Amino acid sequence: VDEALLAKAQAKLDNKTKPLGSLGRLEEVGRRFSAITGSLAPDTAKKVIFTFAGDHGIVEEGVSLFPKEVTPQMVLNFLRGGAGVNVLARHSGAEVRVVDVGVDYDFEPAPGLIIRKVAKGTRNFAKGSAMTREEAVAAIEVGIALADEAKKEGVAMVGTGEMGIGNTSPSSAIIAAIAGCTVREVTHRGTGIGDEALEKKIKVIQAGLDLNRPEPQDPLDVLTKVGGLEIAGIAGLVLGAAANRMPVVVDGFISTAGALIASEMHPAVRDYIFTAHNSVEIGHQMMLERIGVKPLLDLQLRLGEGTGAALAMGLIEAGVKILKEMATFEEAGVASS
Amino acid sequence: VDEALLAKAQAKLDNKTKPLGSLGRLEEVGRRFSAITGSLAPDTAKKVIFTFAGDHGIVEEGVSLFPKEVTPQMVLNFLRGGAGVNVLARHSGAEVRVVDVGVDYDFEPAPGLIIRKVAKGTRNFAKGSAMTREEAVAAIEVGIALADEAKKEGVAMVGTGEMGIGNTSPSSAIIAAIAGCTVREVTHRGTGIGDEALEKKIKVIQAGLDLNRPEPQDPLDVLTKVGGLEIAGIAGLVLGAAANRMPVVVDGFISTAGALIASEMHPAVRDYIFTAHNSVEIGHQMMLERIGVKPLLDLQLRLGEGTGAALAMGLIEAGVKILKEMATFEEAGVASS
Repeated sequence: VDEALLAKAQAKLDNKTKPLGSLGRLEEVGRRFSAITGSLAPDTAKKVIFTFAGDHGIVEEGVSLFPKEVTPQMVLNFLRGGAGVNVLARHSGAEVRVVDVGVDYDFEPAPGLIIRKVAKGTRNFAKGSAMTREEAVAAIEVGIALADEAKKEGVAMVGTGEMGIGNTSPSSAIIAAIAGCTVREVTHRGTGIGDEALEKKIKVIQAGLDLNRPEPQDPLDVLTKVGGLEIAGIAGLVLGAAANRMPVVVDGFISTAGALIASEMHPAVRDYIFTAHNSVEIGHQMMLERIGVKPLLDLQLRLGEGTGAALAMGLIEAGVKILKEMATFEEAGVASS
Repeated sequence: VDEALLAKAQAKLDNKTKPLGSLGRLEEVGRRFSAITGSLAPDTAKKVIFTFAGDHGIVEEGVSLFPKEVTPQMVLNFLRGGAGVNVLARHSGAEVRVVDVGVDYDFEPAPGLIIRKVAKGTRNFAKGSAMTREEAVAAIEVGIALADEAKKEGVAMVGTGEMGIGNTSPSSAIIAAIAGCTVREVTHRGTGIGDEALEKKIKVIQAGLDLNRPEPQDPLDVLTKVGGLEIAGIAGLVLGAAANRMPVVVDGFISTAGALIASEMHPAVRDYIFTAHNSVEIGHQMMLERIGVKPLLDLQLRLGEGTGAALAMGLIEAGVKILKEMATFEEAGVASS
């Protein structure tokens, strides 16, 4: 983004009736939103969370507490408005759109469901590559196309979310491969597995990395070999949002894996990302450090779906409103220091 | 609050379509709001932030960057809707009511202004007691009466805020007196004073404590000798909210000084408090530890007015909506683990 725009937005904030800098990260948010969109009075009305859904072959190794059938069941729950992300998106005035980029189930067309299925789930990465390179690219292109369409439609800000039983395993594998850290350092309990299952999950992920040997310098190779279709879709949404100068709010651990792939491909996308919250998943912190971003919230969330993004969108809109709506010292007749 | 109600609310949360505990502090908020109000589907519609305004004799010692006239100027800014708290309260769907409990200015009656002036500011506590015990009690009673009136009116949740040039000094004095720590450990830059002014502020507060010798075991004595009228009003609002089983959202450093006085008087009020955010003011952390509460946000705010409370009210309402609106596994036809 243009540094001059950041300075102009801060100058506008500095004339508001408050001590300099006293609204902290709300000011940072307002300033960055301005610079991303190129406006000192940015619009925030239309907000959309894209919840990408995909299945994972790795589930057959017993890495998750929930059965694979829960992925399509939760998609139907999203479409009926009963899931956590629906409740929180309604609260923030955002719309939820569910993207079937790789669920192993044939959905009927439904309002709020975008069917762009690349494959019926990934393959088990403990036994071979999760995807072909063509599949990974196709799933990224789904995300890019959705960002392009959102921009045309007048969407002011997009958020990421995901649903895919088993998808903390590929997320841990991605950060381990890219950062070169141990699997144990970045692998946690997902939906809530016990100690024994956690040990098994670590072994399975390690086996997948040993077998596939993803190239750390080639984020597309990492994504292809140990990633997921919904993670690829999120990477594409981040890339597309940045290309369209549209702020993108990245949810938790799995979404950040997608944002990490995007930022390894094009470091400049970092300027367009707001990270929503610190996940309970231990690998999240390492991803955030690698991207170089600091989340807005720390509420011990570990649900995914876009729930953290929905909450953060509310805070981001608040920061923009500070920039737009607060009176200046002159307007209010208040003495400045 | 009733422990059985906390357990009932958590049982309701545990049936929702999510892994157990995966909404972290949102679940905590929903559970506590339930227990406070005695309902498993609590109302959150009507939210009011009471911004208490008062002046401070200590300002004549040069402890603040802004002149004393800014207190009434900012009150008028609140009434016109142009201040930070107005912007953020509108965003969260809350109403701002300004309470003149001690401003050194005669306001005309105006919508949104509640005139309950106890005195035209405190006296300089570096030269004697800030208030009489009768004044401190009267200001507390203003807050209690406002909580009673809010309850009768059907307010679901109240927030605290304040305006008073110089009011970080009495707040630092209060926590130093109660916790027995040094003035330096709990004194910071307020609206943004430099190094030299900070040294002077520390000396002035120390002089006030040495002269007045407030009794740490008697919170009303501490409030009387080194406190403020708006801080007393906030203490009263917290006491009154708890007595009425109404959740109270406590803003930053100065508001927490008020909540600290209330919780030292009646430890049970802690169960009714939500703390909004971690202030940049260094004494805030010690107050929070003393009360035994953990704020919801950490956004580097240091404006006061109720700005943090306004943002936190949005998160609290989100937590309550999770409890009320999310589908259960059975309703959604989703397999549980």
